[in-house]
Amino acid sequence: MPLPSRPAPLLPGRGRLRPLGLDEVRLTGGFWAHRQHVNATATLDHCLAWVRKCGWIDNFRAAAEGRAHRDRRGPVFADSDVYKLLEAMAWEAGRRDDTALDAVVDEVTAVIAGAQTGDGYLNTAFGGPGQAARYSDLEWGHELYCYGHLIQAGIAQARARGEGALTRIAVRAADHVRDVFGPGGIERVCGHPEIETALVELSRLTGDSRYLDQAAFFIDRRGRRSLADIAFGRAYFQDDTPVREAGVLRGHAVRALYLAAGAVDVAVERGDDELLAAVVRQWEATVARRTHLTGGMGSHHMDESFGDDFVLPPDRAYAETCAGVASVMLAQRLLLATGHPRYADLVERTLYNVVAASPADDGRSFFYANTLHQRRRGAEPDAAAQSPRAAAGLRAPWFAVSCCPTNVARTLATLGTCVATRDPDGLQIHQYADADLDTELPRSGRVGVEMRTGYPYDGGITLRVTRATGRPWTLTLRVPAWAHGAHVTEPDGHRRPAAPGTVEVTRTFAPGDEIRLHLPMEPRWTTADRRVDALRGQLAVERGPLVLCLESVDLPDDRDVDAVAVDGTVPPQDAAEGDGSVVVAGRLVDGVTDAPWPYTAPADAPEPRLREAELLLTPYHARASRGPSTMRVWLPATGPART
Amino acid sequence: MPLPSRPAPLLPGRGRLRPLGLDEVRLTGGFWAHRQHVNATATLDHCLAWVRKCGWIDNFRAAAEGRAHRDRRGPVFADSDVYKLLEAMAWEAGRRDDTALDAVVDEVTAVIAGAQTGDGYLNTAFGGPGQAARYSDLEWGHELYCYGHLIQAGIAQARARGEGALTRIAVRAADHVRDVFGPGGIERVCGHPEIETALVELSRLTGDSRYLDQAAFFIDRRGRRSLADIAFGRAYFQDDTPVREAGVLRGHAVRALYLAAGAVDVAVERGDDELLAAVVRQWEATVARRTHLTGGMGSHHMDESFGDDFVLPPDRAYAETCAGVASVMLAQRLLLATGHPRYADLVERTLYNVVAASPADDGRSFFYANTLHQRRRGAEPDAAAQSPRAAAGLRAPWFAVSCCPTNVARTLATLGTCVATRDPDGLQIHQYADADLDTELPRSGRVGVEMRTGYPYDGGITLRVTRATGRPWTLTLRVPAWAHGAHVTEPDGHRRPAAPGTVEVTRTFAPGDEIRLHLPMEPRWTTADRRVDALRGQLAVERGPLVLCLESVDLPDDRDVDAVAVDGTVPPQDAAEGDGSVVVAGRLVDGVTDAPWPYTAPADAPEPRLREAELLLTPYHARASRGPSTMRVWLPATGPART
Repeated sequence: MPLPSRPAPLLPGRGRLRPLGLDEVRLTGGFWAHRQHVNATATLDHCLAWVRKCGWIDNFRAAAEGRAHRDRRGPVFADSDVYKLLEAMAWEAGRRDDTALDAVVDEVTAVIAGAQTGDGYLNTAFGGPGQAARYSDLEWGHELYCYGHLIQAGIAQARARGEGALTRIAVRAADHVRDVFGPGGIERVCGHPEIETALVELSRLTGDSRYLDQAAFFIDRRGRRSLADIAFGRAYFQDDTPVREAGVLRGHAVRALYLAAGAVDVAVERGDDELLAAVVRQWEATVARRTHLTGGMGSHHMDESFGDDFVLPPDRAYAETCAGVASVMLAQRLLLATGHPRYADLVERTLYNVVAASPADDGRSFFYANTLHQRRRGAEPDAAAQSPRAAAGLRAPWFAVSCCPTNVARTLATLGTCVATRDPDGLQIHQYADADLDTELPRSGRVGVEMRTGYPYDGGITLRVTRATGRPWTLTLRVPAWAHGAHVTEPDGHRRPAAPGTVEVTRTFAPGDEIRLHLPMEPRWTTADRRVDALRGQLAVERGPLVLCLESVDLPDDRDVDAVAVDGTVPPQDAAEGDGSVVVAGRLVDGVTDAPWPYTAPADAPEPRLREAELLLTPYHARASRGPSTMRVWLPATGPART
Repeated sequence: MPLPSRPAPLLPGRGRLRPLGLDEVRLTGGFWAHRQHVNATATLDHCLAWVRKCGWIDNFRAAAEGRAHRDRRGPVFADSDVYKLLEAMAWEAGRRDDTALDAVVDEVTAVIAGAQTGDGYLNTAFGGPGQAARYSDLEWGHELYCYGHLIQAGIAQARARGEGALTRIAVRAADHVRDVFGPGGIERVCGHPEIETALVELSRLTGDSRYLDQAAFFIDRRGRRSLADIAFGRAYFQDDTPVREAGVLRGHAVRALYLAAGAVDVAVERGDDELLAAVVRQWEATVARRTHLTGGMGSHHMDESFGDDFVLPPDRAYAETCAGVASVMLAQRLLLATGHPRYADLVERTLYNVVAASPADDGRSFFYANTLHQRRRGAEPDAAAQSPRAAAGLRAPWFAVSCCPTNVARTLATLGTCVATRDPDGLQIHQYADADLDTELPRSGRVGVEMRTGYPYDGGITLRVTRATGRPWTLTLRVPAWAHGAHVTEPDGHRRPAAPGTVEVTRTFAPGDEIRLHLPMEPRWTTADRRVDALRGQLAVERGPLVLCLESVDLPDDRDVDAVAVDGTVPPQDAAEGDGSVVVAGRLVDGVTDAPWPYTAPADAPEPRLREAELLLTPYHARASRGPSTMRVWLPATGPART
């Protein structure tokens, strides 16, 4: 491992902004530190217990002993969930210097090591006695996908705890991939992108550009129909159109987002502006036309894919948690590459309304899909069983396809690295949370900042300089696109407006200097582009970065959330709770009964009875925390229609 | 075959109305006779060529020779498509006394016969050397489902052409089912209902009530979790709740509808009013809450299932053609059982807007799914390949899962039997088409009626009595629920209003007497129940029984169908074409451009520019007949919003 490294999952060699490591940004309290703590103290154990119980660690033993054809359990990609869990544990071990976690990682790693063959191949589902041959099913086999997560786990260990056995296994696997898929080898790609971004990061870790070359090969080869046509079409795994030529993300959402993340990584390392521009173009079209209000991506249940433009029915929103994680990965990469705050805006939206919406308060159950309209009260899932269904109305402890819990775990463990970056001129704050920052600026030396806030519930953010060098530098603060009327107060008390985008404070800071950012947190009505037909005549409420929702548990008389309407002419108001809840002027709709046929002449349509009522809306991320409930984000609106 | 039989697929032993046979109702011209002719002269050949080409007939040879484990091709249920095709051919052979078709049926039957084992078992996917054991996968194996279609084909031969080899194979298979699944046998059901309705009909054909008993067993056993839980849940194959206890149709739409049809059959034969009432209740809830405007059922692509109540996004409407066929089967059974015209209303809606929408004009390509909003122009499918995708924008010649073409074929071949019924008092006309009717009334003797009409384009229907007996009888005419302002003119010239429901004309008819029904065909605006969120703020146009749609090929400048709005305050008008097309006052919407983020404060939402324009709408069933096009049934409406 020739290069010095920092504890962060993403360390580009180039780009407009440079990331900070987990040693440079520490979450100290509030919304995210709480979740990081629950993740560390509950979710990791929970996931470990489940991967053990499901036999996904024993699979490596079975492979080592040549009996996987008989004894292997779980989906073909079960190895990857073990790797993602190890990745999360390695980051978490580093963040808290937790040697007990190291021991768990080492113990599981020893089991994995036994299954790696002499040439570096490692997969419990293929290649053993009685199993399908290696790389005989690139469409669905997930072998390279699993390597990708293995490599990311190995990198986590190297960067968080120092090179160890897991790192060495990962490097051997990566070398094997180069041997087999390198020049003159198999000129095909994996049905599930993921190895691309991992290989680039390994090249960053090791300084060995051959991993980058291999990643670039996979990026360039994709879209050239090296995979078979499948019932979902080649767009499902983005093998329909080369990355450089595509106009929008399409197909399986997680696949599309991981691929785009890998393409950004390759583009950044190679200075390939054409490739970067292609991904930016796809991201812009996807965000403008194929993304739910929550930031959730993927509107089809069938193939977990993006829908056509503006096909975003809230009651069929899939918005897989893993797609949220992947969207954060992609947007964070684009932020580092370009410095544009719009990417951090989407990171924020997606973290609060997709990633944070998945785990329960106790960190032991999860949403896999994140619908925007729950029409039927869900049943309590069996706590002892793998939940077969992604679309349940309540969080489940584990899934037959259980990619999401471990993906959330590794994201929460590394969340600090999304908070801030540096550039030659100073420090940029992208996400607001209680955090202590301490880093070396290239021109101004070592600086420290203590950030304190009640965000996302309160819009006041105080940044106190804790270390300074007597040289000037710039503190750049993101002003979210929704924050009209923000203002910043400089250490000298001067207050000035801060338009959406970024606001900069440049001075020779002294320890104790305080910069205060005020983001207006008045709840606000939101409407959708007219082309999203499924949202016509409906309004949502947002407050700061939070999307709100109405749940039936907050309605009188066991009323369903469909039996309401809201009055968009009256501004929503903060509820007394101070927890981000909002009260809106609404109507309870009565007298809606079934007609024998639900389609009528407009003049014959029944006139429902409306009763004025205040409706309590609560943050979407906390939905379904109070038992079975129906829920909607988008609320039918009275008032004039829009065309 | 002890009982006299009539050429009709459905001959209940009891019920409010008695069906007529294909020998008693002959379609002579117009909309349906044209389609029946295309079906007879093109679709049957087309399907035969494809089942041959796909190897689905050779599968029976392979099974007979014990090599199916190696040579069998196609989905596990491929046998059933051969059976459905034979059923269609048998009916068609009978309808036109076509001995050439008989020869084809005989030839294919001889191949099938070779694969039937000594104990009556017959399936090319199970039970042979190297194959999975018989009945080892009731969840997905489709063995009983295939028998169902085999039995229906055998019944078709017996009733249309007289008992033959196909009938005998079917009876042997049915006897085998009784042996294996009868008392003391396997107490489980098939993952795909279908055999239930077939067994009841076989009992009607043979007079052997043991087939009815077996069907009743399957109906009663379903919903008692004899099948394994699957990822889609047991509701997928209706094994979650017993038929008598369920409140609404759910799960896989075709499965749910076939099961309900079988339940009606059992209920009717046994006088089981509780069971009949249960199905009526489920049908009512399904029609009120889970059915598209076209009559299409099934809103989920993922599992081809009904969605939750009011989850009916038009751009994700699945509305499988086979579900349309199955819905016609169910509604026709309920019509015969109860006499209520609402069932014939749904038959009509579904025939015109789902079943007729599937085949192309030339009868050689088909829609599998019938969306109500095509957002993307489809690509021309490969004419030589099985289309893998059900959701293409254009009709395809064949599908990997090709249940629909043969299901349409057997429906069109027997369509005459939906037209009219008799009861002790007279004749009831349920569907309007050029047709000659000739039947024996129990009290009034043999009567004949010649029906002539330009329906569904013209609302005038003339019924001329061609045969009468000097005894009085009643001619009952259905007045569709949409037909406000209909009137009937009696033979004496007396004209009276006819409210939706039925209108009766009772007299001692003489040959030459004419009864004229006038149904108002003015095109009309239609709105949806407020709980169908995806249709909020949108209107559709219907004309008579036809649902209309807007296609981009009828818009100027290659404009997309999403860039329009309609003014629901101006009544739609007939277009000059006289083909059911309609012109509506509309707006072309310009200036809708992508925002970086499609969700904004209402005050910031872009105001599109509107230009008045007339929009031409055409019958939905003819959609996508003029090349790739975008299409929508539901159109954004200007004017006041409704809550």
